[in-house]
Amino acid sequence: MILKSAEAKPHIVVIGAGAIGSFYGAILKRAGCAVSVVLRSDYETVKASGFRFTSPLGDLSWTPDHVYQPGETPLQTPDYVLLCVKVLPGVDRAELVRSWLGNHTALVLIENGLDIERELADAFPDNPLLSCLAFIAVSRTGPGTVNHQAYGQLVMGNFPKGFDQHCEQLANLFREGGIDVNGTDAVVGERWRKCVWNTSFNPLSVLANGADTLTMLDAPGGEALIRLMMKEVIAVAEADGYPMPPDIIEKNISGTRAMGAYKNSMALDYLNDRPIELEAIVGNIVAIADRLDVPVPHLRTVLVTLRIRQGVDSAHSE
Amino acid sequence: MILKSAEAKPHIVVIGAGAIGSFYGAILKRAGCAVSVVLRSDYETVKASGFRFTSPLGDLSWTPDHVYQPGETPLQTPDYVLLCVKVLPGVDRAELVRSWLGNHTALVLIENGLDIERELADAFPDNPLLSCLAFIAVSRTGPGTVNHQAYGQLVMGNFPKGFDQHCEQLANLFREGGIDVNGTDAVVGERWRKCVWNTSFNPLSVLANGADTLTMLDAPGGEALIRLMMKEVIAVAEADGYPMPPDIIEKNISGTRAMGAYKNSMALDYLNDRPIELEAIVGNIVAIADRLDVPVPHLRTVLVTLRIRQGVDSAHSE
Repeated sequence: MILKSAEAKPHIVVIGAGAIGSFYGAILKRAGCAVSVVLRSDYETVKASGFRFTSPLGDLSWTPDHVYQPGETPLQTPDYVLLCVKVLPGVDRAELVRSWLGNHTALVLIENGLDIERELADAFPDNPLLSCLAFIAVSRTGPGTVNHQAYGQLVMGNFPKGFDQHCEQLANLFREGGIDVNGTDAVVGERWRKCVWNTSFNPLSVLANGADTLTMLDAPGGEALIRLMMKEVIAVAEADGYPMPPDIIEKNISGTRAMGAYKNSMALDYLNDRPIELEAIVGNIVAIADRLDVPVPHLRTVLVTLRIRQGVDSAHSE
Repeated sequence: MILKSAEAKPHIVVIGAGAIGSFYGAILKRAGCAVSVVLRSDYETVKASGFRFTSPLGDLSWTPDHVYQPGETPLQTPDYVLLCVKVLPGVDRAELVRSWLGNHTALVLIENGLDIERELADAFPDNPLLSCLAFIAVSRTGPGTVNHQAYGQLVMGNFPKGFDQHCEQLANLFREGGIDVNGTDAVVGERWRKCVWNTSFNPLSVLANGADTLTMLDAPGGEALIRLMMKEVIAVAEADGYPMPPDIIEKNISGTRAMGAYKNSMALDYLNDRPIELEAIVGNIVAIADRLDVPVPHLRTVLVTLRIRQGVDSAHSE
C-alpha cells in the first residue's frame, strides 16, 4: 500500500541540498514523493544517515531515496528537479542541472534574486520552468543537520509567467507536506516585490558588518536611506513593467519594525565567511536600471562598494 | 647667543602631539622656537625622553621645552597654539584649547575635514584663527616614536579667509624648519579641493575593509563611482561659493593612478581600530549639501552606511 501510493507520486531530485534544498525535499518526502539528492560536501554523512532536522513542524528528518554526487546520472529520470544552490558568479547552474533533466522533467528554482531564471530558460527551452521564492528561516548546523526556525511558505509560478499543471501538482504536494504555497501567474513581479526588501536591507547589512534590521533603521539617516533604496527598486520594477502598490514601502518598514531586530541571510552569509548573492540581489537590478535608464545612485554605491570589498576580502583570505 | 635667538622666536604650544602634532612641533623647534606640548597618553615617555623620529628630512628627534598634561596651565602664554587632534564627535576642541590661549594667542588648526573651524571661531572670536591642511605621510609607531615617511607640505590661511601677519610669520618659521608652505587667502576653497579626493576615496576604502586606491579604481564600476562622488563634492563646493577648475577630477584620478596603490589615513585608522573622521570629512559636506539643496545620493549612501557600521562596531567592542 505504502509503496503503491509512493509510486503514484512524482520522482524528485534536489540539486544543492543545503538547508533550503533539504527542507523542501523533506516536505515533498512527507507528501509521499520519492526524493533523491545531489550532494557535494555532505555526501558521506547524508548517504550514511540522512538529514536530521529540528523544526517547529515536527520531526522532518528524512533519508533520501538516492544520494548522488555531481557527475552521476539518475537511476530514474525525475519528474521534477529542484535547484536550490546559491546564485553566484562562476557557478554554471545550467551545467549543474543538465545531466539530471529528462525531456519532460520540470525544472524548479528555489533561489533568491532577480532575473536569475533567464540562463536556465535559455539552456532548456523545452522543459517546464518553475520559479519559487522561499520565505523561510532555516540553516545548516553541520553535515546533514539542519535547524528550521520558522516559516517555509513558497511563492510559485512559471517563468516568465503563467501557472501550469506542473505548478498545480507541485504546489499541492508542498501543501500535503505541510507548507503554504501562494501560486502566481506573475512570478517576476513577486521577485521584484521581494527585492524591495532584500535589495535594500541585505547589502546594507553586509556593508555595516552584519548590522541587524533595527540597528540599520535607527542609525542617523538609516531609515531614510533604506526608503531611498526601496524607491529606486520600485522605480526600476515599474520601468520593467511591474508597478508596485503605493503603500509597499510603508508596509515593508512597519513590518520590519514589528518583527524586531533581525539579521538577514546575506548578513549571516557575510558573518560566516560564505559568499553573498550580491549580483543576483543587487547587480542584476542595477543592470536592468542601466538598460532602462533609471537612476539608481544609492543602489549603485552599495553594489560597487561591495564589489570592491569582495576583491579586498578574497585577497585577504588567499 | 642661542638662548637669545630662541627668545626672539615665538612660543608654541602643541595640543594633541600625535604623529602630526609632534612632526610640526619638530619643524618649529628646528626653526628655533620654544615648543611645548600637551599630551595625554604618551606623557611619561615624552617627558622622560622626548620624541624619536625616523624621517627623510634627517634627525627630527626633539625634546619639548615643557611637557604638559591636559588641565595644567602654561608657564608662559604661547604666541601660537597648534591644535592637532582628530575632529571627532564628542571631542570638545574648544574645551581642549581654552586654558592655553592668551588674549593674543593665535590658534592654528592642523586638521582634516571641512567646516571644522566654525566651533573654534565662535568660541574664540577675538583670537586670530589659522587653518592648515597637512599633506604628509607620518605615523606614530609607539609612545613618543614617530615614522615620517614622506611629504609635509602645509596649505595655510586665516579662517574664513585672508592671510594675516600671523600666517606670514608662522609660514616663514615652517619654511625655516624645512617644509613647504603654500599661503592662501581662501583656505576654505583649499579644504573643498582636498575633499574632492578625501571625501571620495577615504570613506569608500573603509567600507571596502581597507581597500587601497588601485583596488578601488580597478573594481568593476569603481572608478565610475569615485568620479560620481567627486562630482557631488564639486557641486556642493560650487553651491557653497567655491567653484573648482574643470579638470580637477581628471587630475585627481590620474594623480592617484600615478602614485600607485596607497592606503589612505582613514583606511589605516579603520584597520587599526582607531576612530575615523567620518563627520569632518563626509558628514559636514552632506549637511552643507542638504542646507543648499544639492543632491548627494552617493555620498549620503556612504555616510549613512558608515554611521550604521560605527554603531555595529562599537557594540561589538563593548
